[in-house]
Amino acid sequence: MTLLEHIRAPRDLKALPGERMAELAEEIRQFLVQSVARTGGHLGPNLGVVELTLALHRVFDSPADRILWDTGHQSYVHKLVTGRQDFSKLRAKGGLSGYPSRAESPHDIIENSHASTVLAWADGLAKANRVRGVSDHVVAVIGDGALTGGMAWEALNNIAAAKDRPLIIVVNDNERSYAPTIGGLAHHLAALRTSDGYEKFLAWGKDVLQRTPVVGQPLYGSLHGAKKGFKDAFAPQGMFEDLGLKYLGPIDGHDIAAVESALTRAKRFGGPVLVHTLTQKGRGYPPALEDEADHFHTVGVMDPLTCAPVTAADAPSWTSVFGDEMVRIGAERPDVVALTAAMLQPLGLEKFARAYPDRIWDVGIAEQHAAVSAAGLATGGLHPVFAVYATFLNRAFDQILMDVALHRCGVTFVLDRAGVTGTDGASHNGMWDLSVLGVVPGLRIAAPRDADQLRAQLREALDVDDAPTVIRYPKETVGDPVPAVGRIGGADVLHRRPQPDVLLIAVGVMAPVCLRAAELLAARGVDTTVIDPRWVKPVDPALPPLAAQYALVAVVEDNLRTGGVGSAVGQALRDADVDVPLLTFGIPDQFLPHAKRGELLADVGLTPAGIAARISDALARKNPAPAHEESAS
Amino acid sequence: MTLLEHIRAPRDLKALPGERMAELAEEIRQFLVQSVARTGGHLGPNLGVVELTLALHRVFDSPADRILWDTGHQSYVHKLVTGRQDFSKLRAKGGLSGYPSRAESPHDIIENSHASTVLAWADGLAKANRVRGVSDHVVAVIGDGALTGGMAWEALNNIAAAKDRPLIIVVNDNERSYAPTIGGLAHHLAALRTSDGYEKFLAWGKDVLQRTPVVGQPLYGSLHGAKKGFKDAFAPQGMFEDLGLKYLGPIDGHDIAAVESALTRAKRFGGPVLVHTLTQKGRGYPPALEDEADHFHTVGVMDPLTCAPVTAADAPSWTSVFGDEMVRIGAERPDVVALTAAMLQPLGLEKFARAYPDRIWDVGIAEQHAAVSAAGLATGGLHPVFAVYATFLNRAFDQILMDVALHRCGVTFVLDRAGVTGTDGASHNGMWDLSVLGVVPGLRIAAPRDADQLRAQLREALDVDDAPTVIRYPKETVGDPVPAVGRIGGADVLHRRPQPDVLLIAVGVMAPVCLRAAELLAARGVDTTVIDPRWVKPVDPALPPLAAQYALVAVVEDNLRTGGVGSAVGQALRDADVDVPLLTFGIPDQFLPHAKRGELLADVGLTPAGIAARISDALARKNPAPAHEESAS
Repeated sequence: MTLLEHIRAPRDLKALPGERMAELAEEIRQFLVQSVARTGGHLGPNLGVVELTLALHRVFDSPADRILWDTGHQSYVHKLVTGRQDFSKLRAKGGLSGYPSRAESPHDIIENSHASTVLAWADGLAKANRVRGVSDHVVAVIGDGALTGGMAWEALNNIAAAKDRPLIIVVNDNERSYAPTIGGLAHHLAALRTSDGYEKFLAWGKDVLQRTPVVGQPLYGSLHGAKKGFKDAFAPQGMFEDLGLKYLGPIDGHDIAAVESALTRAKRFGGPVLVHTLTQKGRGYPPALEDEADHFHTVGVMDPLTCAPVTAADAPSWTSVFGDEMVRIGAERPDVVALTAAMLQPLGLEKFARAYPDRIWDVGIAEQHAAVSAAGLATGGLHPVFAVYATFLNRAFDQILMDVALHRCGVTFVLDRAGVTGTDGASHNGMWDLSVLGVVPGLRIAAPRDADQLRAQLREALDVDDAPTVIRYPKETVGDPVPAVGRIGGADVLHRRPQPDVLLIAVGVMAPVCLRAAELLAARGVDTTVIDPRWVKPVDPALPPLAAQYALVAVVEDNLRTGGVGSAVGQALRDADVDVPLLTFGIPDQFLPHAKRGELLADVGLTPAGIAARISDALARKNPAPAHEESAS
Repeated sequence: MTLLEHIRAPRDLKALPGERMAELAEEIRQFLVQSVARTGGHLGPNLGVVELTLALHRVFDSPADRILWDTGHQSYVHKLVTGRQDFSKLRAKGGLSGYPSRAESPHDIIENSHASTVLAWADGLAKANRVRGVSDHVVAVIGDGALTGGMAWEALNNIAAAKDRPLIIVVNDNERSYAPTIGGLAHHLAALRTSDGYEKFLAWGKDVLQRTPVVGQPLYGSLHGAKKGFKDAFAPQGMFEDLGLKYLGPIDGHDIAAVESALTRAKRFGGPVLVHTLTQKGRGYPPALEDEADHFHTVGVMDPLTCAPVTAADAPSWTSVFGDEMVRIGAERPDVVALTAAMLQPLGLEKFARAYPDRIWDVGIAEQHAAVSAAGLATGGLHPVFAVYATFLNRAFDQILMDVALHRCGVTFVLDRAGVTGTDGASHNGMWDLSVLGVVPGLRIAAPRDADQLRAQLREALDVDDAPTVIRYPKETVGDPVPAVGRIGGADVLHRRPQPDVLLIAVGVMAPVCLRAAELLAARGVDTTVIDPRWVKPVDPALPPLAAQYALVAVVEDNLRTGGVGSAVGQALRDADVDVPLLTFGIPDQFLPHAKRGELLADVGLTPAGIAARISDALARKNPAPAHEESAS
């Protein structure tokens, strides 16, 4: 039996002598590499926090003491030492979540998986402890990259205001990118170098630091996200001391005794205190350390020795189609510029960055800044493209409304990972965008159904200079082309029959699903017209008169039903006094568990069979006689 | 002819010798006091920036150089010197906006009126200048309070990253509140005192500073918003130098020569530079200076000598009903705590703060932090109430979704100024909340119709501990009680007739409007049932079967039609297979101009006559015979 197998709860960890920790850490790294290679998942971040996690659970008493993880993709070690060692179904339906999950364990608190929130959670929990007269500790672990988000600043400003309210902030500083401010950084690091911890950090860090390329200003990448880390921007001591936070560090985050010692001092301090730990992403796994792109931030299923993917490379992704088209557009249009919020590579913008380094900016984990600075760029005569995961754009709703749309700025938002994303769980799904952006006056939304449409609609969006435009597409690989057989108003007709009963409105990637549903319906004697509206907001004025010709209209979208395209079509029909039965297919008003995208779509009925069945039933209820003969009579 | 009347454009200002500036400043103050006393508006902030504005327009060349105002309520002087001296209809329909307005002048750029955005705008404009090879200047004016917003941090982090991109940040520091960190402040100010500018500032500022009361930690107020200013939190030089920003200051913001000199140096600098000016809110108008609450941040129509309001005090406001009930609840429920984002007094929380100073927190202009720390407070066993203007809650949409709702936290959001607010213009209207919050799974929304309902529904909300709840009410004074005559499901019946044709669903404050519409319809032979659903999300399951009994259903709300309660009712009817014609009354998908609330509601048809007419028309179209007889047959 391994040491790890003996650890069923944090108390087992505390019972082990300190000198066994290195052995345990080694076992955990072996486990992580072998296990994540089998399932895919976040590897590099978890290899970086092995010792830090062990130290946290030895010094504090979870769950009475609250150990909070920002973003949460670095919680695998935390799971291993809190009774969860079956990683066989990690991120799969019914298996462990890839993030903390309150359903799994009382040791888990935050499962949002959006960055920069942990300090606000900690502030609230610490205030609650104070009001309730409870003396348990609150410990927040946050990466240096997450400190670039505005929420982190808002929280620090609040946390520092109460000198006597205990709260421990652990900065997990694994920054390896170097930025335009490298000169300033060198200056600021001088102050840190007097510290013993820093010397130790240098011993293992020097090689990595020296190997790191200085990429074109202002771009510097990592797979999950290039970070404009706090080391780049300011001396941590300076800032935290200005705020009035006690600062401990820097600490070598892989020296477990040093980390335990710092945490113990922090625990006794009695006020807000920041422990600055220096860690290495991918620690202990040579292939991860050698990977300069992202130190294996996330990996798919792979061979742990060769790191070769177990399945062959897929078809081109939506992301790469977008990225390639941006390069072509960049050559033609010098006014087109790009923005990313710390996600250059996952959004396919590396090629654009290499081709036009002066026309792209990584703003850090700062979607609000991306949106408003885009309004400034547009007002200054350029056409910015802000590419972002759909789920993260919610951070900038007010700014899209009040800065971009109110000012009628020609800004194009490109939403990758829209709709159901799957294995990353509830908070990575981009299933609210059509509803939320649907209420922004003047904004236009396109949902391309295939690669050709993505390229075409991106160009159409870039031709709009007096309103925001949005292009949304999903995570999966882009499928086969879906040709149009005709056009009605602004909509492409994808399928039609001479005397159809049903008008099927397919939003974006739902097109192939709807075409298959149409086949299933045809087999039951129900003929359909399938259209792709292309631009789903505003609703095409040609749609209500078209809808009036049918016995039934159905809208299919991989977005919340509430407030989605179906809802907008319903309003358009009412306003045009078209009284035709309408079915809206989409995601119900609930958070989805983690599972494969296809599994989740099936669970909510977004399959050809599910759609065909509901339409058949509705027609049958409407008219007990066979629908087709009725309609054709 | 006064000096001011000679100033038709900034060039006229430049043509005046510097020694005439004091005279002009005096004229402008006279004008502001007399003029704003006649119309109401933002007085204190504008009195504070007279010299600063004159200096800006003498040193820079607007509109080629961009002078940007954060929030924008301090732009009156800017308007006066850029060709806009007719203040007779300030904030009234057809008159000048109370904020910058691109429709008024090419000198105006930002009209969002939400705080903390100006630095991001400036970053975008400066980047656009660089890409386009333009050497015009970008100048951003931001208050110290606005620096507490996370967006300001995100922007500073970006602005400081490019040492060679010119951008001038003017911090308009009028902070007069003193905070828990007064010790730290004193320490930090020591560094500033060696500066000549600071000595001059002290000469006029000492009295004010000494008069300022130290209010109970952590609360300190002003009418528009208590600020946790940057002086409270950190030494500006320290932080800005850490970031790599050139720092100039502090400058006495009322010494026009000193300000001009600093701005001229900043203009020549060639990189990002921060000019720290110290100003006095209400400067030069004794009644404003003597008003410790807010230095006359905003005033109604008043006598400029006595400052007596010209119209008598109104009926109790929704705000005060809420504030009083919170005090009673606070006595009964020790777990109830409150949060405000720098708006303690405007939201009616002063009494609660006095009664329970340890159970309320002002988090600064930081709605994101308020929402997430509320999730932490709830997870820690308390029930937080975050009171906020409806328009500002949009800042925290992602946090409500991913932190509060996903974690099923019992947090109550109280939305004041929901619906149409009027004179503050497009961006102060709280007309998106029902749509945006409508897509948050599990969240419940109440729209009280009168004071009794507000009190009752607030208590109902506080009894929900496993989901977020929202109470929304408008700006205006609370009207007469609207009694219920019955109950159907969760809805109050406000009016009913034996054989009604129409079901009128009145959302919150639309109840009296709907009752009057019912009278008008009755006069035309159309009988109605009027109900108040009380909780508008989720839609009451009792509603579809009720609706099925009517010839027509109408939903009336002072929210965007798109995605609003009407839309949700439409979906509920479709899902229940209830095929009854539905009319939805609300605000069309557009931004509203500034005007009185009543004028705007009339413009969009939200009047008894407008509602009755559309319903009559719909019934007539549906059935050419008289509706009532038809229904009764």
